[in-house]
Amino acid sequence: MMKIQENDTFPIPAQGPLTAEQLQRLDAWWRAANYLSVGQIYLLDNPLLREPLTLEHIKPRLLGHWGTTPGLNLIYAHLNRVIKAGDLNAIYVTGPGHGGPGLVANAYLDGTYSEVYPDISTNEEGLRRLFRQFSFPGGIPSHVAPETPGSIHEGGELGYSLMHAYGAAFDNPDLLVACVIGDGEAETGPLAASWHSNKFLDPVHDGAVLPILHLNGYKIANPTVLARIPDEELMALMKGYGHQPYLVSGDDPEQVHQQFAAVLDHVVAEIDRIQHDVRHGAVTQRPRWPMIVLRTPKGWTGPKVVDGLPTEGTWRSHQVPLSGLQDNPEHLRQLQDWLASYHPEELFDAEGALRPELADLAPKGVRRMSANPVTNGGLVLEPLHLPDYRDYAVALESPGTTVAEATRVLGTYLREVIANNPSTFRLMGPDETASNRLGAVFEATNRVWQGETLPTDEGLARSGRVMEVLSEHLCQGWLEGYLLTGRHGMFSCYEAFIHIVDSMVNQHAKWLKVANEIPWRMPIASLNYLLTSHVWRQDHNGFSHQDPGFIDHLINKKSEIVRVYLPPDANTLLSVADHCLRSRNYINLIVAGKQPALSYLTMDEAELHCQRGLGIWDWAGNETLATGPGTGPAGVIPDVVMACAGDVPTLETLAAVDLLRQHLPELTVRVVNVVDLMRLQPETEHPHGLPEAEFDAVFTVTAPVIFAYHGYPALIHRLTYSRNNHQNFHVRGFREEGTTTTPFDIVMLNSLDRFHLVMDVIDRVPGLAERAAGLRQRMVDERVRARAWTRAYGEDDPAISGWSWPHAQTAAPAVDGS
Amino acid sequence: MMKIQENDTFPIPAQGPLTAEQLQRLDAWWRAANYLSVGQIYLLDNPLLREPLTLEHIKPRLLGHWGTTPGLNLIYAHLNRVIKAGDLNAIYVTGPGHGGPGLVANAYLDGTYSEVYPDISTNEEGLRRLFRQFSFPGGIPSHVAPETPGSIHEGGELGYSLMHAYGAAFDNPDLLVACVIGDGEAETGPLAASWHSNKFLDPVHDGAVLPILHLNGYKIANPTVLARIPDEELMALMKGYGHQPYLVSGDDPEQVHQQFAAVLDHVVAEIDRIQHDVRHGAVTQRPRWPMIVLRTPKGWTGPKVVDGLPTEGTWRSHQVPLSGLQDNPEHLRQLQDWLASYHPEELFDAEGALRPELADLAPKGVRRMSANPVTNGGLVLEPLHLPDYRDYAVALESPGTTVAEATRVLGTYLREVIANNPSTFRLMGPDETASNRLGAVFEATNRVWQGETLPTDEGLARSGRVMEVLSEHLCQGWLEGYLLTGRHGMFSCYEAFIHIVDSMVNQHAKWLKVANEIPWRMPIASLNYLLTSHVWRQDHNGFSHQDPGFIDHLINKKSEIVRVYLPPDANTLLSVADHCLRSRNYINLIVAGKQPALSYLTMDEAELHCQRGLGIWDWAGNETLATGPGTGPAGVIPDVVMACAGDVPTLETLAAVDLLRQHLPELTVRVVNVVDLMRLQPETEHPHGLPEAEFDAVFTVTAPVIFAYHGYPALIHRLTYSRNNHQNFHVRGFREEGTTTTPFDIVMLNSLDRFHLVMDVIDRVPGLAERAAGLRQRMVDERVRARAWTRAYGEDDPAISGWSWPHAQTAAPAVDGS
Repeated sequence: MMKIQENDTFPIPAQGPLTAEQLQRLDAWWRAANYLSVGQIYLLDNPLLREPLTLEHIKPRLLGHWGTTPGLNLIYAHLNRVIKAGDLNAIYVTGPGHGGPGLVANAYLDGTYSEVYPDISTNEEGLRRLFRQFSFPGGIPSHVAPETPGSIHEGGELGYSLMHAYGAAFDNPDLLVACVIGDGEAETGPLAASWHSNKFLDPVHDGAVLPILHLNGYKIANPTVLARIPDEELMALMKGYGHQPYLVSGDDPEQVHQQFAAVLDHVVAEIDRIQHDVRHGAVTQRPRWPMIVLRTPKGWTGPKVVDGLPTEGTWRSHQVPLSGLQDNPEHLRQLQDWLASYHPEELFDAEGALRPELADLAPKGVRRMSANPVTNGGLVLEPLHLPDYRDYAVALESPGTTVAEATRVLGTYLREVIANNPSTFRLMGPDETASNRLGAVFEATNRVWQGETLPTDEGLARSGRVMEVLSEHLCQGWLEGYLLTGRHGMFSCYEAFIHIVDSMVNQHAKWLKVANEIPWRMPIASLNYLLTSHVWRQDHNGFSHQDPGFIDHLINKKSEIVRVYLPPDANTLLSVADHCLRSRNYINLIVAGKQPALSYLTMDEAELHCQRGLGIWDWAGNETLATGPGTGPAGVIPDVVMACAGDVPTLETLAAVDLLRQHLPELTVRVVNVVDLMRLQPETEHPHGLPEAEFDAVFTVTAPVIFAYHGYPALIHRLTYSRNNHQNFHVRGFREEGTTTTPFDIVMLNSLDRFHLVMDVIDRVPGLAERAAGLRQRMVDERVRARAWTRAYGEDDPAISGWSWPHAQTAAPAVDGS
Repeated sequence: MMKIQENDTFPIPAQGPLTAEQLQRLDAWWRAANYLSVGQIYLLDNPLLREPLTLEHIKPRLLGHWGTTPGLNLIYAHLNRVIKAGDLNAIYVTGPGHGGPGLVANAYLDGTYSEVYPDISTNEEGLRRLFRQFSFPGGIPSHVAPETPGSIHEGGELGYSLMHAYGAAFDNPDLLVACVIGDGEAETGPLAASWHSNKFLDPVHDGAVLPILHLNGYKIANPTVLARIPDEELMALMKGYGHQPYLVSGDDPEQVHQQFAAVLDHVVAEIDRIQHDVRHGAVTQRPRWPMIVLRTPKGWTGPKVVDGLPTEGTWRSHQVPLSGLQDNPEHLRQLQDWLASYHPEELFDAEGALRPELADLAPKGVRRMSANPVTNGGLVLEPLHLPDYRDYAVALESPGTTVAEATRVLGTYLREVIANNPSTFRLMGPDETASNRLGAVFEATNRVWQGETLPTDEGLARSGRVMEVLSEHLCQGWLEGYLLTGRHGMFSCYEAFIHIVDSMVNQHAKWLKVANEIPWRMPIASLNYLLTSHVWRQDHNGFSHQDPGFIDHLINKKSEIVRVYLPPDANTLLSVADHCLRSRNYINLIVAGKQPALSYLTMDEAELHCQRGLGIWDWAGNETLATGPGTGPAGVIPDVVMACAGDVPTLETLAAVDLLRQHLPELTVRVVNVVDLMRLQPETEHPHGLPEAEFDAVFTVTAPVIFAYHGYPALIHRLTYSRNNHQNFHVRGFREEGTTTTPFDIVMLNSLDRFHLVMDVIDRVPGLAERAAGLRQRMVDERVRARAWTRAYGEDDPAISGWSWPHAQTAAPAVDGS
């Protein structure tokens, strides 16, 4: 069977573009890559098959995936040819990344592998080590991974190859990103959405993505959807995605080589023509980019039949076609024949090095896909040109009296970040940049959009720094690809819906963790999240939009990787954002509000507070007053510590402290605000963890701590359970009570409101229960009254929603320079 | 503008199918629904506009989404017509669920709303209440939600409408599921994958899904991808998905009514013809099901221009087109005109009831989409016919000596569940049913597959109980739709990749939480997860496949909803699975192994252990021996409690206990196994929480507890931080160290291994440090030796991997009857 899609632009060549010698050499490379792939899966020794295979040469556990590998090797070999022919700048994204042996084999054949791992030399001993290390304890993983030169894409969880490919292509106008998509992966949602990425690729300023849909017909145990729909449907689908598809199909190597070479020559020329036309102004509409469908047998060139069952071309080739060799001499013999079928003696010389005429097929230096610098993004990373965030500060005279929208302020800073870095920074968001009040960025840039535009549209352009699509998966995947190839960015998202990418975050965190341990992988820019439209201010959208659990999800990752910030106001948000944009190899999570809210700290104070990560707000507590002005809180143990993390909890805490100071002036209250959540952990658990003595100095070892927290309360217990004062921690937060109502009603539904916090103080501070019984009852009444108010008027009592800090005269003296 | 897709089967009608009277009445229904929608968003009072609108009639906070609503109302009105004409059994899945006012309006117009909420009566006072309650504190949410009669689909997070629709259609052969997909939602990954669900719908035994892609052109602030690609691409895309698309496009109501009616008549007839043909054997290939593209303006019939800016037909209509009415009398006037444009006086009678000739347009009784029993799944739910799980028990003579693969045993039980329940139970999995060793089910059923089949395929059929697609999203969404319409199921998944659906689980948990609070919503079958191929046994697939964090994710949900089970062996898995299949309204998470592993409990013991949720394994500890046979452990405080949860941690714990009993026979050791993780929480936090006294009796209040846990260790601290003995809890678990290696090496990398547990005991039990220094050093040496072994041989030392419990003679006496 063999087919090539005919259409008006691509004539079927009368005979293939490859000469007999070219064909023979290309095929030899392919055989060499296949041989090395099988060798990695099976062999401990005898790497050149110079003696008959015995059980001593075979690994005791056979781990690896053969099925997809010959196809990956074929594509790699052909890409090498066109790269060399056209001096192309190309990389290879491996969707079927469990075909790890194939990518390792090609990186070894082109020399990169031995350059980064000198121990794996280009001789027989190197081959032996190459084989042994694969899927072996102390060796390398079975999938494409950070350890694999040339990869930006872990081949574990499926779905993200094409979005990574686009992320790599953005702002790399000379780059060609070949992206192999397995037909299994093509069933996933994220991949299905990715096809439309071509509506967001600017052909002038971005590079090109060449999707190669590799249909080998089977997943683990099932046929695949796209392999079993009629060709007309498949072609319609690809055209519907906006591509010009070319189909190559066959199981005769020689014919497939010729056809695939012809198609590849054509699509490379087509990409070149598209880019030339559009970059010279000849064309303005969205190009119909080419893509290739390659249909070859699963486990091609492997055993055709094993134990009487068809194997090549079926799901039985998915992992290890021949197993149980210890108990089955026939299988050992079949393995011998299989390896010998590639004729290693024709491929490698006496020392075990690839023969020079084959080695010559590989591109040289950084043109090798395995050595392209963008696949080791830190190599090409330039620091951002950042404006002075202090220039965007909110001015305030005294804490808690000035209103600002934190993300709107941040937007003005990001506008300058964008203006200063016109090709190395992108802001991603699922249609929420304006909704999240970052709209100032549109003074400096536009939303990327290659589709039709209408007069009513605003802020759309062929090129821009803002990428909006209603898919958190695409936002995440594009940004990952962009960061992994040495650029910078931020992803702004509704807090609840960031869970959509939980699993992608896991995989990126794993990548960073492992990459950190690999000397030749250079640090890349951090993945920065700005979560806003957060749980407490989705009162209008209802319960489905209320979920603060992403923090919990993230902190299970390696502590070296994750950072969580809850800036309470606009100035702290500025300071945190600047810090995150300068950092490397982290996942930074910032949760901040977009609604009008009180500002508490001047820029100087905010900076200091963020550096410390948490701190006592002595202007808010009354310890200073209790011990006399100027003496400070040192050494005095307050009656209660009111701790808070997050903007709404900070507001409610301060309002509660106001009530306490009014009604129980003799009570000494300390207010602690936490910006950097990881400070709460012991220093043994997280690099930001506060040393025990410092923690005790802030939270005391005896006083009740009423902790108002942005998210699920259990998280604070999880972080602080080993702290000396933990038994006195009483945490309020979101307890999964929500609906469409008013902001204060949501807070009350979850008992995080100021009145409840006062009740908590009364219940927890020894001796207060009786003394303050009247105040406690009043708080109960206030809650009833506030609730009745919202139900009567449909909005919060202005006396509550309009509250500001009335103790201006007790504000701390200004820090030097403010 | 107006278009209807021409093709060989559907002629454009010379004139519409609606008579003038039909057209007028249909339009009147639409106007009524639109009027009620606007009323809900804006009005506190004056519901029939019987006096000029004043600010007193207007809500203080305007919350709602108008943009999508007129389109939803139009589709609803037209579906009513064909349902009545054909006595169809149909439901309506609302992808753009933020158009909540529209669905509420239609349920009110057809009478269902007042039936389930008698307070919202069919008169002027009822209308007033209907309007006031919307997005109002104490009222109903702004989105389609559990509160909305006829809905199985929360309209918050986008992406899941079409998969829910298919889930509802499975095994409901007479059901027509109309599914409206917004063009915003269509950009998401899960929705993009959902289109291929038609390859998994059996036209004989399943009902029909009619996708209606509603292109109104804009998301929140941006145009949508599918609205801005050429029609040819859009049609190619839909054909590529395997559909026959019909395009209706326009902004003139009269013409759109005629065209949409014509198309709807046609597609209903087409569905009928397909079903007839296939059910009478005339056709066997996969049908090309019809679908509709409806292109109408966003915010259709709303204000055309507001403040000089185009509004109808643009993103400015997304939420509330007219706002700030308090400060802008012109806006108030525009609202008056807008409401009046629907002519409420023609729609409602003097009492405020819908005029009879309009009310007559609605289907009657359960034919109303808002009253279809399948949308309140508990109404039609039948209990499963479950076999006796005890019949599938693994026989064992003494604990820890018999090997079984837990999921393989479960597979034999599930085979009978499937055989006994041929149309009410489905097993979902991303191509992993065989890999997860549930293969016995294929003795009773097949995998559903409507695509082409080849001779090499196995276990594929047009109908079957197993659904496999390489998309966790589809597995989850199909199952949710199936459960919500009153059936049963289980989702088996690799543990790491279940995070792909974290966000979907959130939304389902929210649905269950709210539905529990609504009296007319009947309990549905629980959502059951079987997570296998778990973190400890993905040694071959590597780090990307190793993540136990879904448990952490789930337990943030309401404790009334979530249950987490970690059965340590096959018999406990059987008992847990049976329990979960009988339960209602929960999300049950079962984590179990698929690899050969030791069995510990007879069926009787397993049953008792699962009922208790956790318990002391006195056969494993040596308390009984220490205090004399028959006296039992009561009242004695052991030197150490060795706790474990999960199969691998249980194995390592027992192996550690074996070492302790050999080398430190004087040490009294208690072994506690936890099956039901929620038992660890205080009873105030979770209904399964163990009362304090019982917890203290098991875990003591003074002894060191060495807890070997399946997942991230912090979770155990989170659950137990308030327990009396918590300061003595020392937890081992996964600490995010993984790669491709051997099973025991993974355990060692994370310090969960038997040797490390013995070291932990020595470090924690007072007085042991010196006394057992030699043993401790030996444990260090054993770890070095084990690691060296794996690196030398590529597999685990058989003395470690083949360990079994050597203390058979100390097994507990058999429970009565075993």
